[in-house]
Amino acid sequence: MNINDMTFDDMIKELESLDIKDMYLNDFFLTWEKTDDEIKAVWTVADALRNLRERNISTKVFDSGLGISLFRDNSTRTRFSFASACNLLGLEVQDLDEKKSQVAHGETVRETANMISFMADVIGIRDDMYIGKGNAYMHEVTQAVQEGYEAGVLEQRPTLVNLQCDIDHPTQLMADTLHIIHEFGGIENIKGKKIAMTWAYSPSYGKPLSVPQGAIGLLTRLGADVVLAHPDGYDVMPEVEEVARKNAEASGGSFTKTNSMAEAFKDADIVYPKSWAPFAAMEKRTNLYGEGDFDGIDKLEKELLAQNAEHKDWTCSEELMATTKDGKALYLHCLPADISGVSCEEGEVDASVFDRYRDPLYKEASFKPYVIAAMIVLEKFKDPVKLLKDLEAEGKARIHKN
Amino acid sequence: MNINDMTFDDMIKELESLDIKDMYLNDFFLTWEKTDDEIKAVWTVADALRNLRERNISTKVFDSGLGISLFRDNSTRTRFSFASACNLLGLEVQDLDEKKSQVAHGETVRETANMISFMADVIGIRDDMYIGKGNAYMHEVTQAVQEGYEAGVLEQRPTLVNLQCDIDHPTQLMADTLHIIHEFGGIENIKGKKIAMTWAYSPSYGKPLSVPQGAIGLLTRLGADVVLAHPDGYDVMPEVEEVARKNAEASGGSFTKTNSMAEAFKDADIVYPKSWAPFAAMEKRTNLYGEGDFDGIDKLEKELLAQNAEHKDWTCSEELMATTKDGKALYLHCLPADISGVSCEEGEVDASVFDRYRDPLYKEASFKPYVIAAMIVLEKFKDPVKLLKDLEAEGKARIHKN
Amino acid sequence: MNINDMTFDDMIKELESLDIKDMYLNDFFLTWEKTDDEIKAVWTVADALRNLRERNISTKVFDSGLGISLFRDNSTRTRFSFASACNLLGLEVQDLDEKKSQVAHGETVRETANMISFMADVIGIRDDMYIGKGNAYMHEVTQAVQEGYEAGVLEQRPTLVNLQCDIDHPTQLMADTLHIIHEFGGIENIKGKKIAMTWAYSPSYGKPLSVPQGAIGLLTRLGADVVLAHPDGYDVMPEVEEVARKNAEASGGSFTKTNSMAEAFKDADIVYPKSWAPFAAMEKRTNLYGEGDFDGIDKLEKELLAQNAEHKDWTCSEELMATTKDGKALYLHCLPADISGVSCEEGEVDASVFDRYRDPLYKEASFKPYVIAAMIVLEKFKDPVKLLKDLEAEGKARIHKN
Repeated sequence: MNINDMTFDDMIKELESLDIKDMYLNDFFLTWEKTDDEIKAVWTVADALRNLRERNISTKVFDSGLGISLFRDNSTRTRFSFASACNLLGLEVQDLDEKKSQVAHGETVRETANMISFMADVIGIRDDMYIGKGNAYMHEVTQAVQEGYEAGVLEQRPTLVNLQCDIDHPTQLMADTLHIIHEFGGIENIKGKKIAMTWAYSPSYGKPLSVPQGAIGLLTRLGADVVLAHPDGYDVMPEVEEVARKNAEASGGSFTKTNSMAEAFKDADIVYPKSWAPFAAMEKRTNLYGEGDFDGIDKLEKELLAQNAEHKDWTCSEELMATTKDGKALYLHCLPADISGVSCEEGEVDASVFDRYRDPLYKEASFKPYVIAAMIVLEKFKDPVKLLKDLEAEGKARIHKN
Repeated sequence: MNINDMTFDDMIKELESLDIKDMYLNDFFLTWEKTDDEIKAVWTVADALRNLRERNISTKVFDSGLGISLFRDNSTRTRFSFASACNLLGLEVQDLDEKKSQVAHGETVRETANMISFMADVIGIRDDMYIGKGNAYMHEVTQAVQEGYEAGVLEQRPTLVNLQCDIDHPTQLMADTLHIIHEFGGIENIKGKKIAMTWAYSPSYGKPLSVPQGAIGLLTRLGADVVLAHPDGYDVMPEVEEVARKNAEASGGSFTKTNSMAEAFKDADIVYPKSWAPFAAMEKRTNLYGEGDFDGIDKLEKELLAQNAEHKDWTCSEELMATTKDGKALYLHCLPADISGVSCEEGEVDASVFDRYRDPLYKEASFKPYVIAAMIVLEKFKDPVKLLKDLEAEGKARIHKN
Repeated sequence: MNINDMTFDDMIKELESLDIKDMYLNDFFLTWEKTDDEIKAVWTVADALRNLRERNISTKVFDSGLGISLFRDNSTRTRFSFASACNLLGLEVQDLDEKKSQVAHGETVRETANMISFMADVIGIRDDMYIGKGNAYMHEVTQAVQEGYEAGVLEQRPTLVNLQCDIDHPTQLMADTLHIIHEFGGIENIKGKKIAMTWAYSPSYGKPLSVPQGAIGLLTRLGADVVLAHPDGYDVMPEVEEVARKNAEASGGSFTKTNSMAEAFKDADIVYPKSWAPFAAMEKRTNLYGEGDFDGIDKLEKELLAQNAEHKDWTCSEELMATTKDGKALYLHCLPADISGVSCEEGEVDASVFDRYRDPLYKEASFKPYVIAAMIVLEKFKDPVKLLKDLEAEGKARIHKN
C-alpha cells in the first residue's frame, strides 16, 4: 500500500506489528542504537499524530509537565520543532539558558540535571560543536536523572531526545527519511535506489558532521545504494562509516565512498549535498579549545577556509542535477542552505535548483516536529497503540469546533 | 444604550449585525484596510471576551497551538499584551529571538516564516524602526506562509497581528479608542467631539510615528473633529494624512492640522500629546542605515535632539489642560510617558496631570490584550458569534471554582 | 503519626484544623510575618499536591492565566522551581526580562507592575542583591497592583511569592524545613534538636544573607536549639536575630550565637554550613552602588575576599561532621555548594561529605516547586480544603492513562 493512502487504522495496524517495548522510559541518542521496528515506530507514530492534527483532534496527552530544552548553539528550526512537538503533546517548554543560570558557578551536570527535572517529562539537548563531547554530555545527563529517579529525588524519569550531537542528528535524519518515504510512496520503494550524501562547498567554517554521519547511519538501513562523496581529507568519523557498512550489508543495500561529486550524482534518485568540516580538523579544534589555544583555533579556521576554497566546484549545480535519475533526483537539505548568489557568492547549491525544490524542502522540514513528538510518545507511554486509539475515540478538538 | 450597560447577549446581538466574513483567515495590518463593521467587530469581541473572563468563564479556544512573537525592538507592554492574549485563548507563545536563531546566517524571510509556523496559529510582529520596512516585512511574512499553506507545507495558515509597524500601531490605537468609547458611553457619543493628537517635547530621539499616524487614521472614522498638531517640520507620512482626510469626510467629522498646541487643546474633549520624530528624518535615518553610514546617523541624531529642544514649550501642562473642555479632557498616552520632573527634566506632560490620569491611563492599556485576542478570534474562527455563545454555554471555569 | 505515613485524607484533616483565612488574596514576603498555622498550611498543601501528582492526578487549577517572574540575578533552580510550580497549577510563566523591556526607559515600578498584570495571577520576584532594596521593591509591586485592582484596572489582584529578597528566602527555607520534617518523621520530632546554621568559607564574594537569615527566622519556630555560628564580623541583620530570639522563646527552643564552628557542630542533629557576606559590608556596597562609586566597590570586594581567606578553616570537613550527633547530622545546603577540590580549591564542604549527602540534598531541593505551588494555592483559593478534595474526586490524569 502506498504510504500516502494509509488511513489512521492502517497506521495503528502497522504499529501493532512492531516490537517497541524497549522504547518505554528509554532515550533516543543515535538511530543505529535502535532496531528497525523502533525506527519504523517513530515514523508511524509521527504520521499518526499528524493525521490526528489534520483532523483537528487534540493530541494533548500531558495535562501539565515540562519539556526542557538546552541549546548549546544557535537554532531556529530545531528550537521551534522541539517547542512545537512539546506543545502538540501538552508539555510546556522551559529553556535552560546557560547564560541566565548558575551552571557556570560550580554546579555539576548531575546537579543541574536533577534541579531542572522535578516536573520534567522530557529533555531535549543540542550539543554538536565538539567532537567527543556532545553525545557524552547527553549520556551524563540521562545517567544523572536515572540516578535521581532511583533515589526518589525525581517522581518521573525525564527521557532524552537528542536534538543534535557530535555524532548524529537523529531528529533531522528521521524527518529527512520520512520525507523520502512519503515522496517514494513507501519504505519498500527505497530499496535499490541510489542516494548520494555529498559534501558541498560553503564559505563558512566548521559545519557539524552530524548530518552526513546521521545520513549514512540511517539511509543504509533502507536497502538503498548509499554513496558518500567528499573531497580528499573531508572524512567523517570512521566508527560511523563502519555502522553504515554493517547496515548496508544487513539491509541488502550498499555503502560506497568516492571523491567525485559527479560520480555520486550520476543516476542518483536522491541527493543530499551539504558542507561539513573534516572530522580530523574538528577533533583538532576540540583539543585546541581544551587547551585554551585560541591563536591555534584562529590559525586552524583560516586553514580550513582555505582548504574549503579549493573545492568550490563541489556545488549542486544545474549541470550536476541533470545527470541524476531522469534529471529529477529528490534534492534534500537540512536548511539553511548556502545558496550561490543568494546567501553567499558561491555556495552549496545553485539558486535555480534550490528554488525548484523549495516546497519539497519545506515539507521535509515539516516532519521534524512530528518525529520529535513521536519519540516522546514512544518514550513516555507503555502502550502507544492504545494511546492513539484513545485519542481518536475521545476526539477532543484542537481548535474549538466552529 | 450606554456601552457600559451592555450585557453579553447585547454584545452577541451587536456582533450578529456586522459583516465580518472577510476577516476569517485574514490578517490585521492597518486599521484603514478594515471596514467599519470589521473595526466594530474587534471592539465587540474584545468586550465579550473580557465579559466572559470577568465571569470566570474560560475562553480557551485552542487546546494546543503556538502564537509566535517577533519583536525587533524592546517591548514590555506589547510583549505582555500579546502573551496575555495568546494565553487567554490557549496558545503558547514562542518568541523568535533573532539573536538565538540562525536568521542572520543565510535564511530568507520566506524560509524562516515557514520553519517557525508548523504549529503556529498566529504570528505577532513588532517592526517599527525603519520607514518603509516594517509593514513591508510583515507582508513578506504573510505572503510566505500563504505560499507554504497552499503548497501543503503548513497544515494551517498562521494569521498576522501587526504589533506595530512603521505606518500604524493598530493594537494600540484600537485599545485607545475602545477606552474612549467606554469613557464616553458609546461610539455614537464620539461624534462631534474634538480630539487633539499633538506632538509633545521629549528629550529622547526617534520615537516612532506609528502612534500619531494610527491615531489620525482611526479616530477620524468616528465622526469626531480630529486635530493633528505639531511644530513645523514634524510631519507624519503624507499618505496617512490623506487617509485621515478621506475618513473624516466619510464619517462626517473633520481632520485639520495646526502648528499650535494651544489651538489643538482649546475646548478639546480628548488630548493625546506624545513625542515623535519627523517623518522626513526617519526616512533619512533608514537610508543612512541602509548605506551603513553610522557617522551620518550620529550627526542626524544630534540634529534631531537639537531640533526637539527648540520645542520644549510643547508640553501637556496644567495650563493647557485647563483650556480643554471644562478643563477635563480625557488625557491619552500609549505609555511610557516622559513625565517632567519624574522620568526626565522636561518632557511630554506635567507630573500632576499624569498623576491625575494614572488610573484611566492604565485602564486604557488594559484593553490591549483583549483587542489582540479579538483580532485572533476573528481571524481564526469562521463563526465568532457561535464560538462566543458556545463558550458561555460551556461555562468552563478559568480558575477552578472554589 | 509519622508524617511519611500520612494519607491524602490525613493531610486534608490537618489542613482543616488550621486557621488560614488571612492567606487568601495575600502575599508571601517573610516567614515570620505568617502565623504557625499559615506556615503549616504551606507544608501540608505542598505535601498534598505532591501526593496527587504522585498518583497522576492533575492539579491544574487554572485553565489559563500567567505567572510572572522577575529575576534580578541569575538563577537556575529557583527559576525552574517557579516555572514548575506554575505549570503544575496551569499557569504559564512569562518572564519579565528587564533587558528586553522598556523598564529602564522611564517606567515607574507602579506602571510596570500594572502593565504586566492584566492576566497575571501571581508574580514571583527574586531581588536579593542590595540590602534594604529587594523586600522594599516587592512591597512597591504589591502596593501597585493592589491599587490597580481597586481602581478597576486589573480584574484580579496578582499575589506575590518572594523568590528571595535581601532579608529572607522563604521558598528556600520552607523547602529546607519541609525536608527536615520528612527526614525526622514529623514537625514534633524537631523539638529539642540542635540545628547549626554556620558560616563556611567560599572563595567567592558577596553571597546573599537571605539563607542564614531565613534559617534562623524559621527554624527557631520549631522548638529546636538553633545555633548561629560565624567568624567575628560576619553578622547578619540585627532585626532578624531579634526575630529569631522571640521565635525561640515562643516555641520553647533556643537561639544562641557563637564564633566557633566546632562548638556549633558539636552534637548537632542538623548542620547548614554556607558562606555569606557580612551584613555591614553588604550595606556598604549598597551605598557605594547608590553613589556610583565603582572603585570603592572594587576595593570593598578585594577587602572582603581577603577577609574571607582568613577563615578557610570554616569548612564542613569530615572531622567536623564526625563530631555531630552519632556523626550523622543531616547536612543541608541550598545549592550550588562550593565543594573543596571540585568546584574550587578550598570551599564550604569536603567532597566526600557532599557526595554522601547528595541524594538527600537533591530531595531537599525537590520540595521547592511544591512549596511555591502551595503558596500560590493558599493565596488564590478561599477554600483550599475543598479545592484539594475536588481535585482528588475529579481525578483527571496528569499523563494520559495508558
